Amino acid sequence: KQYRIAVIPGDGIGKEVMPEGLRVLEAAAKKHGVSLHFDHFDFSSWDYYEKHGQMMPDDWKEKIGKHDAIYFGAVGWPAKIPDHVSLWGSLIKFRREFDQYVNLRPVRLMPGVPSPLANRKPGDIDFWVVRENTEGEYSSVGGRMFPDTDREFVTQQTVMTRVGVDRILKFAFELAQSRPKKHLTSATKSNGISITMPYWDERVEAMAKKYPGVKWDKYHIDILTANFVLHPDWFDVVVGSNLFGDILSDLGPACTGTIGIAPSGNINPEGDFPSVFEPVHGSAPDIAGQGIANPIGAIWSGAMMLEHLGEKVAGKSIVEAIERTLAERTLRTKDLGGNADTTACGKAVADMVD
Amino acid sequence: KQYRIAVIPGDGIGKEVMPEGLRVLEAAAKKHGVSLHFDHFDFSSWDYYEKHGQMMPDDWKEKIGKHDAIYFGAVGWPAKIPDHVSLWGSLIKFRREFDQYVNLRPVRLMPGVPSPLANRKPGDIDFWVVRENTEGEYSSVGGRMFPDTDREFVTQQTVMTRVGVDRILKFAFELAQSRPKKHLTSATKSNGISITMPYWDERVEAMAKKYPGVKWDKYHIDILTANFVLHPDWFDVVVGSNLFGDILSDLGPACTGTIGIAPSGNINPEGDFPSVFEPVHGSAPDIAGQGIANPIGAIWSGAMMLEHLGEKVAGKSIVEAIERTLAERTLRTKDLGGNADTTACGKAVADMVD
Ligand SMILES: CC(C)[C@H](C(=O)O)[C@@H](O)C(=O)O
Ligand SMILES: CC(C)[C@H](C(=O)O)[C@@H](O)C(=O)O
Repeated sequence: KQYRIAVIPGDGIGKEVMPEGLRVLEAAAKKHGVSLHFDHFDFSSWDYYEKHGQMMPDDWKEKIGKHDAIYFGAVGWPAKIPDHVSLWGSLIKFRREFDQYVNLRPVRLMPGVPSPLANRKPGDIDFWVVRENTEGEYSSVGGRMFPDTDREFVTQQTVMTRVGVDRILKFAFELAQSRPKKHLTSATKSNGISITMPYWDERVEAMAKKYPGVKWDKYHIDILTANFVLHPDWFDVVVGSNLFGDILSDLGPACTGTIGIAPSGNINPEGDFPSVFEPVHGSAPDIAGQGIANPIGAIWSGAMMLEHLGEKVAGKSIVEAIERTLAERTLRTKDLGGNADTTACGKAVADMVD
Repeated sequence: KQYRIAVIPGDGIGKEVMPEGLRVLEAAAKKHGVSLHFDHFDFSSWDYYEKHGQMMPDDWKEKIGKHDAIYFGAVGWPAKIPDHVSLWGSLIKFRREFDQYVNLRPVRLMPGVPSPLANRKPGDIDFWVVRENTEGEYSSVGGRMFPDTDREFVTQQTVMTRVGVDRILKFAFELAQSRPKKHLTSATKSNGISITMPYWDERVEAMAKKYPGVKWDKYHIDILTANFVLHPDWFDVVVGSNLFGDILSDLGPACTGTIGIAPSGNINPEGDFPSVFEPVHGSAPDIAGQGIANPIGAIWSGAMMLEHLGEKVAGKSIVEAIERTLAERTLRTKDLGGNADTTACGKAVADMVD
């Protein structure tokens, strides 16, 4: 089977890292006999917006909705377009309209990457954050009353549906069950957020009954963030609402020093729509155009994409190539203390693919 | 003037650490000619609840509402009383009914305290988290519909009022202005939480205009938690909503290794009602009754209370006594790797007060 991949570099360093991601994907595909076909799109970018006054063409769904996956660079350039136009006009639109209800990110201490935590070594920290990606705190329900008076107030609803909560928990429990430790941690705040969070807890308890082989616990989000720093070795699969998952999936990579190289998947598990794979870093206007961006976030996202497509061996070969490149400490980019440019780093990883 | 302090030990280790807090307060008061009068109350505890079926007497406001401050131990014992009874029946009631709209916590790397972060030394990290303490995400507005069907959903509103947001921002900007660095960081998430958080940003911008001497910036909460780990030296005063402040004021102390010894103030700045000072740690059922709890959180909270009452010199003398005790590394409790019991540690700090 040939996989059709929609490639959207987007903005800023997105355009610089994607060629390296493609280089490594091609190397792995060749080595492992996987057939990939790439279609390139220029929308979801400031350039496109400048020309067309919108982030995407009206028929964007027809253009990319039938692909097997979407390989994405970065979007957003706050100085040029407000976030609610750029992000809500592309990334968040994909999540909602392609029902990518899982946001998945690894938290892994990699060899050779300087971690801000003291006394941790590769292998100590290795877990997944599973984030609900379509509802929760990112609702659009709410408004403002009595504007510009002392009575002014705004309100915004957090919305959790049975369907929305149960399906993300199911995904998280399945993932936990498939891993050696079989452990799940739920992020809550039911002692303070007194309606939605107790409901989340209730659904976790109900779902846990269906997975008797999975040990689970829950922490309030305040102490959970503390435990990411103090006891990152406690975790295996961590599941949270849209907001809590967002926080934990930045904090986790930060604790392992990998925030600049972390990958993510916005996944529609049923495969009714394509999933989006993108590096966690954004478009980084401050370093864009210099060719110094670290391509590993994009490359690692490509590996996640292959694994999602079922090409586990090819995907794993990329992750291992990344680990070897990082461990050798030679061809690293500036953010990791090296001198290599984006292309040199990408080539190094491609050469390592085995 | 004599200060009248309401003392409420509450539950678990709250009862064990409070005598040490009082010991140190008395030592500092004696040294610095401050007159403190303590009234002791047994409510806000499981014992009281067991006897009376409620957390506090009906006339709790008359009993403690006229005191100059409330010195609090810990509340909550989830195995015996659900949080929504114990916490919402005491701590959160105080915050709301005594209009303690500021929750204030220091984040400071102390000498002699093992920090989970690599390569940081005392003096590197020294900032305050200012948390809105009465509204925001902890509203009680919302509900459930279509229970036990596939259409089931719950919703809960985040509520931000002009009055509520402006007054916490004012407090935070004033605090920033009083400090040498004069820097303020606002926690937001306006790229995802599209109604309340842009409002928060808008009010921050408006308030900043009134404090031209204060430099300020803002970060989305996801990357802000990452920056607490990666760049804790960037911060001076950090202000956030009820939820964001809650998260940051656990994560901050965790980064400095002080979560077990951190203090907090629930403050009504106008002094219309008493403020509550309490250690950040809870009742800790797992170690309660053994006499091994670290009393420094309670002692440090006592120092914050003195400072709030205007007794800066006496307050400072306690903080310095804590620092010296920690630096000497002799009389420390088990959680910090020592052998001292709660009383021995409390006596050591009291002896150090100068
Ligand atoms: C106990 C809980 C309701 C409380 C809160 O979230 O406000 C606690 O975490 C705190 O920070 O004081
Ligand atoms: C850009 C922003 C809206 C987004 C989010 O909060 O979902 C980002 O932080 C992410 O994690 O993908």
